[in-house]
Amino acid sequence: MTTVFPENNPQQHKHSHKNNKQHHHGHIHSEESQRKIINRLSRIEGHVRGIKTMINEGRDCPEVLIQIAAIRGALDRVARLILDEHLSECITRAAEEGGIEEEIAALKSALDRFLPS
Amino acid sequence: MTTVFPENNPQQHKHSHKNNKQHHHGHIHSEESQRKIINRLSRIEGHVRGIKTMINEGRDCPEVLIQIAAIRGALDRVARLILDEHLSECITRAAEEGGIEEEIAALKSALDRFLPS
Amino acid sequence: MTTVFPENNPQQHKHSHKNNKQHHHGHIHSEESQRKIINRLSRIEGHVRGIKTMINEGRDCPEVLIQIAAIRGALDRVARLILDEHLSECITRAAEEGGIEEEIAALKSALDRFLPS
Amino acid sequence: MTTVFPENNPQQHKHSHKNNKQHHHGHIHSEESQRKIINRLSRIEGHVRGIKTMINEGRDCPEVLIQIAAIRGALDRVARLILDEHLSECITRAAEEGGIEEEIAALKSALDRFLPS
Repeated sequence: MTTVFPENNPQQHKHSHKNNKQHHHGHIHSEESQRKIINRLSRIEGHVRGIKTMINEGRDCPEVLIQIAAIRGALDRVARLILDEHLSECITRAAEEGGIEEEIAALKSALDRFLPS
Repeated sequence: MTTVFPENNPQQHKHSHKNNKQHHHGHIHSEESQRKIINRLSRIEGHVRGIKTMINEGRDCPEVLIQIAAIRGALDRVARLILDEHLSECITRAAEEGGIEEEIAALKSALDRFLPS
Repeated sequence: MTTVFPENNPQQHKHSHKNNKQHHHGHIHSEESQRKIINRLSRIEGHVRGIKTMINEGRDCPEVLIQIAAIRGALDRVARLILDEHLSECITRAAEEGGIEEEIAALKSALDRFLPS
Repeated sequence: MTTVFPENNPQQHKHSHKNNKQHHHGHIHSEESQRKIINRLSRIEGHVRGIKTMINEGRDCPEVLIQIAAIRGALDRVARLILDEHLSECITRAAEEGGIEEEIAALKSALDRFLPS
């Protein structure tokens, strides 16, 4: 894995809305979406743990591969949820505050991250 | 997710080699491979946990999407390791014990699980 | 293939801008983009034709699979170009004409088509 | 696209079985498979041509993206057919002639070409 794992990054950007009028960030604003995404990630985490058990028990490869494919699907769906949030935000901001070019760039950048290339 | 999560399956197939002469299963036999796969799955599990932290901290969507793409890549590499073990086993068994048709079918079935369709 | 091939569709929607004030369509408007996309599709078409030659010549499977993977990559890049055009249009329209919800829906619908699910 | 297009390669390997006892190649041997693969590739070629028509007619992006996704699916199915042929050959050869390691390597190499990494 070449990506630096963010948790270990000491210059962690702690975002705060309190003293921050403009928040042109692409993070999840809705409490409900945030909870939904966290829940799904927790289920994915448990699913990965379950695969370790399968390997330890000597389960057959095709069975294990099915579970890995299921996790991949679940991950893609979480990513899509996050992307949809971002997309709604970008379009809403473009409509309300202008900055069309910035929003187009923000959305393309998110797609670059998400899509296989 | 439509797949039944195997851990919850009560009729869990506990495979044992002791009293079992023929083991035409496609599971991971080598201790080293098994440990390697478990280690990778543990890292993936930690990585998923880290993404939950990112969401809770309100990190930007593109950052989160990069991490999800990294996990997807790591999962694909684990799946490929498992598939390679299976493939080696199938070919070796075909050469040593015959049963060509069974081994071809076993390998195609593993690919069906792994590949996007 | 379950998708109906559009060329054979008799109720072909011939779009015209002349007598059409509002054009809330997501098609490619820029001449340059359109030409670029057509050129890339022509190259893909030639590439597919080249693979037929390879098969007829009895070329090795791995060689053929590399070429198929290359075409898949080229197709994904064309799709991304089309998606980027659409995305720019949706955001621009949202900013200039409002209709935020429609534009969000239009963009999500395009992603649904493009992304593996 | 970084791959060299094989048709333009002057040192084209013209394979012949006549004066060639051992043919450890991974190409398609069965006439029927070869015809099936060529037919599918021809349909894909026509499908790509159809998308050019759609672009020229100014068809909506989501419609075009659906067709591109359909082609991607069709390509993946052709690749899978080719891979299955190769897999059967490798296993059969391993069983009939030995050379287990070579066949394992041949199959892994084919998977490397086919699978996204």
